[in-house]
Amino acid sequence: MPNTKVLPLLDPAAGGSAAAPCCPPLTERPLDAGEAETAARMFKALGDPVRLRLFSAVASHEGGEACVCDISDVGVSQPTVSHHLKKLREAGLLTSERRGTWVYYRVEPSVLAAMGQILTGRPAAAA
Amino acid sequence: MPNTKVLPLLDPAAGGSAAAPCCPPLTERPLDAGEAETAARMFKALGDPVRLRLFSAVASHEGGEACVCDISDVGVSQPTVSHHLKKLREAGLLTSERRGTWVYYRVEPSVLAAMGQILTGRPAAAA
Repeated sequence: MPNTKVLPLLDPAAGGSAAAPCCPPLTERPLDAGEAETAARMFKALGDPVRLRLFSAVASHEGGEACVCDISDVGVSQPTVSHHLKKLREAGLLTSERRGTWVYYRVEPSVLAAMGQILTGRPAAAA
Repeated sequence: MPNTKVLPLLDPAAGGSAAAPCCPPLTERPLDAGEAETAARMFKALGDPVRLRLFSAVASHEGGEACVCDISDVGVSQPTVSHHLKKLREAGLLTSERRGTWVYYRVEPSVLAAMGQILTGRPAAAA
């Protein structure tokens, strides 16, 4: 067996619903410590320029998903790309699924909507 | 003269208009390097739990503004509070104004709306 690991498959539905109700809008009341931990983790995941470019490359790719082979033109090495994609996955912003040779990444729309609502206080329309 | 510095006054209108048109929605197209730098700086500013709690304390305070005296109950020292408020100001998320003894901080609604729009792709309603 070569040195290959199958990434765990995440259930998009479970991931989305788990992240969505984390926090009230920032303008509603001061966040408590637990809420702030959860929300800060998501914002921090987007707080790196390379990570943000990779994320937008996935989010804007045809069909809302992309494999590593589609999004590696941001001027960093392949291991660095993989590292950032892993961070985005751990933060609940991307889900991943192996299909054949490649792992495909997909943006979790409910998480984006929840983050937008924390900022603007307005529920998002259906993505 | 004691060791006191008057913080520079930021023009909310100028700060807002400068930050607002930074980037297209993440789902529209891959961000370029410059856009990603700008947007990542804003997300990173919210990527720390203490900073996020302070920010929500200002954002949810009566009248949308607060002085340090109003928001220091997040369990960190006064210098740490000041450090985080400075970071939020540098990221364009807060403006500040000295009035008498205290410096008052105010959330820049246009920046929050712009960040929300980057995430959700929808223009925000008037704040």
